[in-house]
Order: sequence, then C-alpha cells, then structure tokens
Amino acid sequence: MRGQEHVSREIRGDRWLEGYVPYLLYRVTNKLNARLLARLRITKTNPARWRVLSVLRAHGTLTVGEIVDSTLMGQPRVSRVVAQLEREGRVTRSPGREDSRVRRVALTAKGVATFEAIVPTALRHQELALRGLSRKDIEAVKRVLARIERNIDQANDAVSVSS
Amino acid sequence: MRGQEHVSREIRGDRWLEGYVPYLLYRVTNKLNARLLARLRITKTNPARWRVLSVLRAHGTLTVGEIVDSTLMGQPRVSRVVAQLEREGRVTRSPGREDSRVRRVALTAKGVATFEAIVPTALRHQELALRGLSRKDIEAVKRVLARIERNIDQANDAVSVSS
Repeated sequence: MRGQEHVSREIRGDRWLEGYVPYLLYRVTNKLNARLLARLRITKTNPARWRVLSVLRAHGTLTVGEIVDSTLMGQPRVSRVVAQLEREGRVTRSPGREDSRVRRVALTAKGVATFEAIVPTALRHQELALRGLSRKDIEAVKRVLARIERNIDQANDAVSVSS
Repeated sequence: MRGQEHVSREIRGDRWLEGYVPYLLYRVTNKLNARLLARLRITKTNPARWRVLSVLRAHGTLTVGEIVDSTLMGQPRVSRVVAQLEREGRVTRSPGREDSRVRRVALTAKGVATFEAIVPTALRHQELALRGLSRKDIEAVKRVLARIERNIDQANDAVSVSS
C-alpha cells in the first residue's frame, strides 16, 4: 500500500525549533498575548483601547503615526480608537509645536484614571508570567531583547539605505 | 482656548512600558516576524508553507491539530496548506496508529528538500537577530522563555480546571 510505504520511509523530527530563538519568542509572545487579551476581556476592556492608553501613558504625547509604531496596530484601527477616546474625553488632540498639521494625542486626567483602573490586570499578568525567575534572569532577558531589537532596526535601516 | 488648556495640564509619560516584559516581547517578536516574512517573500517562499514545513521537520509526524498548536496558525489555513503540500508530494497523510480517523501528516523526502532549501534564510535571520550576544545571554533567554511558557500553560490549565 502506498500510504504504508510512505510511513516506513517517514522522516523523524530533528527538534530543530527547540533551539531557534525567533520561534521561541513567537510562541511565548503569542501565548502571553492570548492570555492578556482574555484577562482584559473578562474585565470588559477592549484590548485595542488598552494598547493605545498604555503607550500614551508611557510616552506622554504621541502622533497617531507614533501610536501605530508603538502599538504595532494598523493605522485605521488606531485612528478609530483615538477618535472614540477623544469623544469620551479620555484623550485630547492638539496641533503639534513644530508642525501644526500633525495633531498630537495625549491622555486627559480621565484617560489616566482609565489606564490606572486597567494596569493592575496587566501587572498581575506580568507577575504570573515571570513567576520563579530571578531578577538577574529578568534583567538578562531585557538586555537581550533590547539588543535583538537594535539588530533588527539596524538591518532594516541598511536595507532602506541600499534600496 | 480649550485645546491649549488641555495641553497645559498634559500628563507626562512615565515610560512604564520600558520595564514591562510582555510588551518588550511583543515588540521584538513583531519586528522579528515582519523581517523574516519579508526575507521569505524575497526568496518567493510563502510564509504559511514555511511554518508548516518547519514544524513538521522539527516534530516528524503531526496531526493537523498539532500543526495548529505548533504554528499558532488558524485551523482552516493549516488544512489548506497541508492539502496543497500533499498535492505537490511534499507531505503524506496516513491513518494514525491509535486512532485511524486522525490522519497523521509527515514530510516526504521532497518536503525535506524544500525545507532544506529555505532553512538557510531562517538561520541567517536568527544569526542577524542575535548578533553581539554571548552564548550565556542566549542560554539565559532560552531558559527564561521556557519558564514563561510553562507559567502561562499552568495558569491556563488552572483556569480550565476551575471553570
């Protein structure tokens, strides 16, 4: 039988992905993300809103383009969320200092309060994820991630320059 | 003016995300992924095919459900890719030993050859990403990622048991 003939020639797995760091990062990030989004939904938080609030809290004032870069969400979705938050009085949009056509988005006090109500869920999520890890391990992973990001940014810049 | 009043009360960013590990992982993974997919496209490789080939190479034989779990792709997409690879003679499907209704997917020699033709791109991608990092740092990050994954899996199991 053809099927069985194939099985007998079956190639064994070589477990190569266990040592492939981009895959390990991809798996862990996906699992973390799925869990955080599920936790946010339980607390009736829209994950896209949370992403926008969290980068504004971190950076203070951002253009829509900068929110896109920081959240890695699509531009149309970011614009929709920002417009919604503005209608609710959670963010303001004001003309930029250098270029008044580029509107700068910032949290209002109400927006900060919304962020503060959600952040404990995000911090518990991190605490659970990092359970059992030493401070040294955590510092090492932060250093490695910063270096990987710099390596990728530099490689992307090199491509843009050469093309 | 209302806008200016808001600006004067503007809340400064507290940079909290710089220390938030799930966000650092999310950023780095997204950037790595975008770059790998771009490199694969340059070599005319369909990223979804690559994901399926790479997990089959690592694990040997998998059901479609296991390919879904390993690639974190959706089930309909995995099924389409597997059917396509089967038509091309790159994978075979055979009845499972324990449950003959569950078909098990494995690479053929032709499928392995396809994998081998693509894997150098993936390995160069990793090499570039990890440039400048010590072996010790890389081992630390692998250990941390394994622990985070275990923590999340256990937390998810706890939720399933209690619900």
